[in-house]
Amino acid sequence: MITIEDLNGRLLAAEYAVRGPIVIRAQQLEEQGRKIIYCNIGNPQALKQKPLTFLRQVLSLMEYPELLEKSDLLKHYSRDLVERVRQVLERHPHGTGAYTQSTGIPFIRQAVAEFIQTRDGIPSSKDRVILTDGASKGAQGVLVALLKNVNDGFMIPIPQYPLYSASLTLYGGKQIGYFLDEQNSWQLNEGILTDSIIKAKSKGVNPVGIVVINPGNPTGAVLSYDNIKMIVEFARRNSLSVIADEVYQENVYDHRAKFHSFARVMHDMDETGVTLFSLHSVSKGFLGECGHRGGYLEFRNVPDNVVAQFVKLQSISLCANVSGQLATYLMVSPPKQGEESYETYIRERNEVLSSLKKRAEILGKGVNQIPGMSVDIPQGAMYAFVKIELPPDKDVDITVMSPEELSAYNARRDSDYCMRLLEETGICVVPGSGFGQLPGTLHFRTTFLPPVSEIEEFVVKLKQFHEHYAKVEALAS
Amino acid sequence: MITIEDLNGRLLAAEYAVRGPIVIRAQQLEEQGRKIIYCNIGNPQALKQKPLTFLRQVLSLMEYPELLEKSDLLKHYSRDLVERVRQVLERHPHGTGAYTQSTGIPFIRQAVAEFIQTRDGIPSSKDRVILTDGASKGAQGVLVALLKNVNDGFMIPIPQYPLYSASLTLYGGKQIGYFLDEQNSWQLNEGILTDSIIKAKSKGVNPVGIVVINPGNPTGAVLSYDNIKMIVEFARRNSLSVIADEVYQENVYDHRAKFHSFARVMHDMDETGVTLFSLHSVSKGFLGECGHRGGYLEFRNVPDNVVAQFVKLQSISLCANVSGQLATYLMVSPPKQGEESYETYIRERNEVLSSLKKRAEILGKGVNQIPGMSVDIPQGAMYAFVKIELPPDKDVDITVMSPEELSAYNARRDSDYCMRLLEETGICVVPGSGFGQLPGTLHFRTTFLPPVSEIEEFVVKLKQFHEHYAKVEALAS
Repeated sequence: MITIEDLNGRLLAAEYAVRGPIVIRAQQLEEQGRKIIYCNIGNPQALKQKPLTFLRQVLSLMEYPELLEKSDLLKHYSRDLVERVRQVLERHPHGTGAYTQSTGIPFIRQAVAEFIQTRDGIPSSKDRVILTDGASKGAQGVLVALLKNVNDGFMIPIPQYPLYSASLTLYGGKQIGYFLDEQNSWQLNEGILTDSIIKAKSKGVNPVGIVVINPGNPTGAVLSYDNIKMIVEFARRNSLSVIADEVYQENVYDHRAKFHSFARVMHDMDETGVTLFSLHSVSKGFLGECGHRGGYLEFRNVPDNVVAQFVKLQSISLCANVSGQLATYLMVSPPKQGEESYETYIRERNEVLSSLKKRAEILGKGVNQIPGMSVDIPQGAMYAFVKIELPPDKDVDITVMSPEELSAYNARRDSDYCMRLLEETGICVVPGSGFGQLPGTLHFRTTFLPPVSEIEEFVVKLKQFHEHYAKVEALAS
Repeated sequence: MITIEDLNGRLLAAEYAVRGPIVIRAQQLEEQGRKIIYCNIGNPQALKQKPLTFLRQVLSLMEYPELLEKSDLLKHYSRDLVERVRQVLERHPHGTGAYTQSTGIPFIRQAVAEFIQTRDGIPSSKDRVILTDGASKGAQGVLVALLKNVNDGFMIPIPQYPLYSASLTLYGGKQIGYFLDEQNSWQLNEGILTDSIIKAKSKGVNPVGIVVINPGNPTGAVLSYDNIKMIVEFARRNSLSVIADEVYQENVYDHRAKFHSFARVMHDMDETGVTLFSLHSVSKGFLGECGHRGGYLEFRNVPDNVVAQFVKLQSISLCANVSGQLATYLMVSPPKQGEESYETYIRERNEVLSSLKKRAEILGKGVNQIPGMSVDIPQGAMYAFVKIELPPDKDVDITVMSPEELSAYNARRDSDYCMRLLEETGICVVPGSGFGQLPGTLHFRTTFLPPVSEIEEFVVKLKQFHEHYAKVEALAS
């Protein structure tokens, strides 16, 4: 029988806190009848966000096209959507049940290219688009393809969504962390990037790419145009490919902030040397269709023979799931003005986005009123990365710790904090150490996805808990 | 800009002929208006197999549960299925739009465990089941987890479905090929297995597992009970884990053959030492729901802490797509006798299976009447691995070739053959070298999935082509 000693050491070493021990404990408590407020993961429909009607009407008809022949039934569907389904079936008669081309259904890739053209006013080609099972699979494909030698590594933000650190560990790539600038709304800082890459090279690590998450996870920050320009120039100087994780592009709440795609900024710069992989997904935005695992990967400044290798990689697992491909199609090609389904679509979209904006504010403002806690009110995405202060631990002298020891010590402290928070209040958040944080600081990541009433309850409970926890800690130390 | 030289050499080396150059050429010809008979891939619904009504009715309601409130509409659905959807939504209120637990929705894992219990009369636990995006993802997960050191390898059949060779190449594992015994209905042969493992060890390769595909892809063979027992004993003696790819378990056409699961045979043997990973999928059988990417991985003789590592691996990509999970649920829990949908289900199932049986026979018998071609009439799965004889090439002395040279020479010959077959007849099959074959032999793999009329056309065209091709080859040499 195999034992844990027989397993791939890189799998054993990989960490993915978003679904780690605290979440497993939360599920146990829930089974015992406790009410849990799940703020650990960006999973809107598990927290009562309703799916968009137009999207589900189309998917429902696509699963059972016989319904198109029942005229009495079609009154329950918008006419334009019925027409849309007929068009889809004309262009793709195999429906949802057959493997598609490895890269995805051609007309959907074309629709993605047109979406990018319209969004950014720049050219885009369907032959540079691959439909993926969510953005995660696209990101992992890029890492697998670009990690050539054992010392190759990717620059990843700290804090970051742990898909990147976990996948790099799993595939044997080096992590080159760069700190986001918490003092400066979590933007990237050129000096920090430069220091980070110099340090990595001095250790023999060969940086091949940089991961940028915009809007940010877990930070909720939206990068400025100039910040993106700086990153592209940095990538060019250092011969790095860019992975632009842009899955939160629709989730911008602050009217002073605006989403700028890397594709558009690079186009404006006439940048033809930096290779760009950009990712999008149906899981976030206002669709929140996480369960459908749909998304795409777009390539820029990549030769045909490299794209062909990505196609082969995709082909080994055959193709992305077709319902997810269709959800991606509907995301990039929603109802148009004048169509019957348009008004409902706009109303539902606006409800989701304005409610998220409201919840971001309630959470941000509430947390900032708790002594010992601070957070930037999230400009975008679905998360807040809350800084917490705990009384110093008198038994421990952190000044004599190595950076690694300090980081391990902090990880214990923030994990203990989040586990106690869960046990005492039912609130499930993820320790900052699961994303990375500046040594000596402590955080947790929370979503602002629960309904407004629960967010309000969250803030009250968090305050009570924190005051009590800090007091007990202070007494103990 | 990245170039092909920057890419992971293991990706460049991976080969996946099922979607390789011949298929790409077929797609080009089709775009130019040629009629192509696609026999390259087991994709039934792309070849006019109809989806099962009960499965699509449930998925359609699950995508748009508002339909449950329209009483006039529900007459288009079987009552038991409407009730079933209500039960699913009670047990899983998040529907299709939310991430599930990393391992999949608990009640569906429970249904899988009960399916195995019923199929085999043996215990099975939901905590030893992970729902996956098709079987491919399950297989790849096992390879990633078990490849610990650079010299670790898996025994894989020759011929084999190239998922295994491609994934091993990609993950840096060694391939330890073992020939299937074509003379003996493609069963496994203990002597060949032993020779193969001895040879691998002498080269410093460390075998950690053996892949067995039953019923066979590309062979169409069904393994006997005793053959499976022999394999389990071989695995025990050599401390190998077993990957049992059992996705064709419903596809057995020959009344003398019977599917025996590895789980059942191991249970009968009181085998508690050999670790088993068994795979199943909604893509094959009589559902043919390839596009939904649903399947499961069941573990036996695996400690909890090893399962936990697989759960973590799954969590990094969040979870399998929910429609695929639901399709898996419906596969393992179809309509029951007495329910309204039962009769249609049985009729549709029987139509698919009896038609596949008929097509297997037409293809097998037809091919065997072509001089220079032979094939076992497929007992199961969806494929025939056809042996072809071509006149010797007088310019080439194969007796002086190394095994590697001979294998490369044969690969050119069978690829040329299949490309010419495509160009001249529109028939798209995959060269035997894409699956592996005994040195000196030539094959191609074809599905028997096209409709009966096309299979008949296939046989006629194949005969004409082969006679002509062999004649031209003989003249040229």
